[in-house]
Amino acid sequence: MPYIDLNSDVGESFGNWVMGDDAAIFTSVSSANVACGFHAGDPSVIAQTCRDAVAANVTIGAHVGYRDLAGFGRRFLDCSPTELADDVLYQLGALEALARAAGSGIKYVKPHGALYNTIVHHEAHAQAVVDAIRAFGSDLPVLLLPGSVALAKAQAAGLRPVAEAFADRNYNPDGTLVSRREANAVLHDPATVTANMIRLATEGTIVAVDGSVIPMDAESICVHGDTAGAVAMAAAVRAGLESASVSIKSFA
Amino acid sequence: MPYIDLNSDVGESFGNWVMGDDAAIFTSVSSANVACGFHAGDPSVIAQTCRDAVAANVTIGAHVGYRDLAGFGRRFLDCSPTELADDVLYQLGALEALARAAGSGIKYVKPHGALYNTIVHHEAHAQAVVDAIRAFGSDLPVLLLPGSVALAKAQAAGLRPVAEAFADRNYNPDGTLVSRREANAVLHDPATVTANMIRLATEGTIVAVDGSVIPMDAESICVHGDTAGAVAMAAAVRAGLESASVSIKSFA
Amino acid sequence: MPYIDLNSDVGESFGNWVMGDDAAIFTSVSSANVACGFHAGDPSVIAQTCRDAVAANVTIGAHVGYRDLAGFGRRFLDCSPTELADDVLYQLGALEALARAAGSGIKYVKPHGALYNTIVHHEAHAQAVVDAIRAFGSDLPVLLLPGSVALAKAQAAGLRPVAEAFADRNYNPDGTLVSRREANAVLHDPATVTANMIRLATEGTIVAVDGSVIPMDAESICVHGDTAGAVAMAAAVRAGLESASVSIKSFA
Amino acid sequence: MPYIDLNSDVGESFGNWVMGDDAAIFTSVSSANVACGFHAGDPSVIAQTCRDAVAANVTIGAHVGYRDLAGFGRRFLDCSPTELADDVLYQLGALEALARAAGSGIKYVKPHGALYNTIVHHEAHAQAVVDAIRAFGSDLPVLLLPGSVALAKAQAAGLRPVAEAFADRNYNPDGTLVSRREANAVLHDPATVTANMIRLATEGTIVAVDGSVIPMDAESICVHGDTAGAVAMAAAVRAGLESASVSIKSFA
Repeated sequence: MPYIDLNSDVGESFGNWVMGDDAAIFTSVSSANVACGFHAGDPSVIAQTCRDAVAANVTIGAHVGYRDLAGFGRRFLDCSPTELADDVLYQLGALEALARAAGSGIKYVKPHGALYNTIVHHEAHAQAVVDAIRAFGSDLPVLLLPGSVALAKAQAAGLRPVAEAFADRNYNPDGTLVSRREANAVLHDPATVTANMIRLATEGTIVAVDGSVIPMDAESICVHGDTAGAVAMAAAVRAGLESASVSIKSFA
Repeated sequence: MPYIDLNSDVGESFGNWVMGDDAAIFTSVSSANVACGFHAGDPSVIAQTCRDAVAANVTIGAHVGYRDLAGFGRRFLDCSPTELADDVLYQLGALEALARAAGSGIKYVKPHGALYNTIVHHEAHAQAVVDAIRAFGSDLPVLLLPGSVALAKAQAAGLRPVAEAFADRNYNPDGTLVSRREANAVLHDPATVTANMIRLATEGTIVAVDGSVIPMDAESICVHGDTAGAVAMAAAVRAGLESASVSIKSFA
Repeated sequence: MPYIDLNSDVGESFGNWVMGDDAAIFTSVSSANVACGFHAGDPSVIAQTCRDAVAANVTIGAHVGYRDLAGFGRRFLDCSPTELADDVLYQLGALEALARAAGSGIKYVKPHGALYNTIVHHEAHAQAVVDAIRAFGSDLPVLLLPGSVALAKAQAAGLRPVAEAFADRNYNPDGTLVSRREANAVLHDPATVTANMIRLATEGTIVAVDGSVIPMDAESICVHGDTAGAVAMAAAVRAGLESASVSIKSFA
Repeated sequence: MPYIDLNSDVGESFGNWVMGDDAAIFTSVSSANVACGFHAGDPSVIAQTCRDAVAANVTIGAHVGYRDLAGFGRRFLDCSPTELADDVLYQLGALEALARAAGSGIKYVKPHGALYNTIVHHEAHAQAVVDAIRAFGSDLPVLLLPGSVALAKAQAAGLRPVAEAFADRNYNPDGTLVSRREANAVLHDPATVTANMIRLATEGTIVAVDGSVIPMDAESICVHGDTAGAVAMAAAVRAGLESASVSIKSFA
């Protein structure tokens, strides 16, 4: 029976500010990218998120980011590799303590936002993230963009890189994402998205923007929970996968 | 052969700002209260401090504080017990990851600044700190003020409370500290301080402000490293203890 | 023709986090308490809020708070009076620059959250807020709780204190608020609230929790915009006041 | 009688952390680049710095930076132009309030650290800084690197750009700074530095790294106060200029 992972960002509230509907998304996903306090998530938010993940039987991953609450980790920050590695290690430790208190622990790492995008190509920051995960000591799998520099560096360091596909994004025939500057970058139709993700999980291919069928080597599918539409899309994808006899389980 | 612990605050630099002479103080103390990022210490400062502590064979403790960089953790913050417990647990996990990467780990906890002073009497905050240490899972000893509410709560929770004396402070005949509002609150003469600390380590007594000899049940002596004078005082206390055949070693 | 002011908190979003429906509340109120960045509001949020206030012809006030983003300014922070006065003055200047760029300026000050509640009784913090407003140089009116220490100090300093009533709160017969620990602290029925606020605006009295009619000397009514229900309540109060021929205009 | 300005960074302490010897540097300079709280300087530090500047008869400038306390504003932050402009305007307003309370006000603007270096070439961030200064409304002069994009944009916007030279830096024959990656980037001999700065002030030329005499069109000389050596260098430069009958006064 084929299976695949569904991952989503959670724990992104901060203090009095609420972000996303984590309770709803926990009913759809198998892996939770939990914010660690540097781009989002305060300790009490993180603690509650971990308890909720455990209750929902969802695997906890560390969503590490640049130190930038005001920018939600979505702005490149030109920190030194040492600073970045230490910041990531700090975040891993903090989340681990809260996840363990909730009865679980960190099972994988996913870089967030600008850090995720930067280490697609930025050698030093990619290496810093890998170094931090190695220093943490558990050799956790890392969820990354296929073809990214970080993925290669994780592999070279003996970590397990896990490639992910984006449910609601259009892909070019060469397997890269259609740029968000293009009008058709994002897919909005749940039926189209679901059909494509079933194809991915069962055949290892997706339909690209030009209609061609291309290989896609991804062990996880990224869905979103920050809007009502996104939550509904995630639920549709899960339901579609299950009705196609694809099992949903975490890669970690 | 009698022995006692010497502890001091370290890792209190932040970004471009330097605080204290940690390298110097590491030559005198056996236990290092390492800032965890909420009142002082950024991840790179903490990481370096942990490496330096390991190199100097100094035991690492977690110096947890209120979330208040602008106030250096010296201002009471009326957070909820849940917020406080989660903040402390977050700090413990963060430091643990950096300390382990340096080849060691957290061996004890010492609340910092306003948190230290608050939990002398504040029931809910004292319990929150104890709860966080329990949740961390290693049942670490806690360094506290003798007679404090937190000390009683730590004991009740099955943790090991460790009482400390302050090398450079005058004590009232009842064992409480002479208030800093009094002119003679602080001792400045290394010879006087050293003699008193030798007495503490060898006989379990100190000379109070009125000249009376009083019992003082302390397993650790707190010294400072934030000024040149403080560093010299710490070195004098260590030298004095050693010349009196008192061994310096951590309680943890 | 009688008139009264309606005030509400706005500009409380921060970075990627959205708080409240400012656009909706601007259609109901005459005065906007704009967050200044210390408890909520980043510079871009504040700038946009000021432009929206100007476009809606709503008067801008400075909603100054303790330096505590993680706690949304709702936790007492035991800062020194000097720190508090400087923090408030800093916030006033920052908002003034953004408000002027939007074509207006600060017309009044309202302390936020824990600061508002603290200076009901805390002499030193109350004086610090007053000192900061004096130092700002424009002798702005201050929106405060009737009977508060801060109100008396503002008056003594030559500032104009403006008392406010809370539309959705029950009052004791002595004019104090029914504690939030009581089940009936908050009023939920728009009709009841509206009738009471019309009474306030036209007769200077309100109906207290025991049904007695008591005097209430308030120039402004505080409404909320953080939930859909609150926005609807604000709109109902405004509509009710206008239908009773009460004009809505800022006190400032 | 020839004259020139000496400027230096001040107000860079934060909370319990002290940076630089502002009191000493105030005896040498005519212009003070006062941190505004985003890279350094808390409100009480800024307030005291402004009072000290006024007492020392030193002109106050706004040292605006990226929002990055942990990085001291020395790391490029890829914020949007709108975010940057609003951040700068917020900082200008905040400092203005504190400077006015001290009896003065902002007389010029100098971008700090990574922002200073970025707008040498970054069109959008350069324009954002210029836009913020225009929005502030006083059309303040801007202290910048000769030849920078920001300088051209300031001029185009009708602001007065003021070029500065660095007392302790070596220059290439083409007028650019010798890279800090080169061993001879920084000058350490007070006599050499002073002679060069006298030449600058009296003839509008300096001696470049290859010994050639090149034109240097600078109205201000940047000196440092963050180390004892830097403070001594600043004093030497001032004394040298005065003994050469060059008057020290602010350009603003």
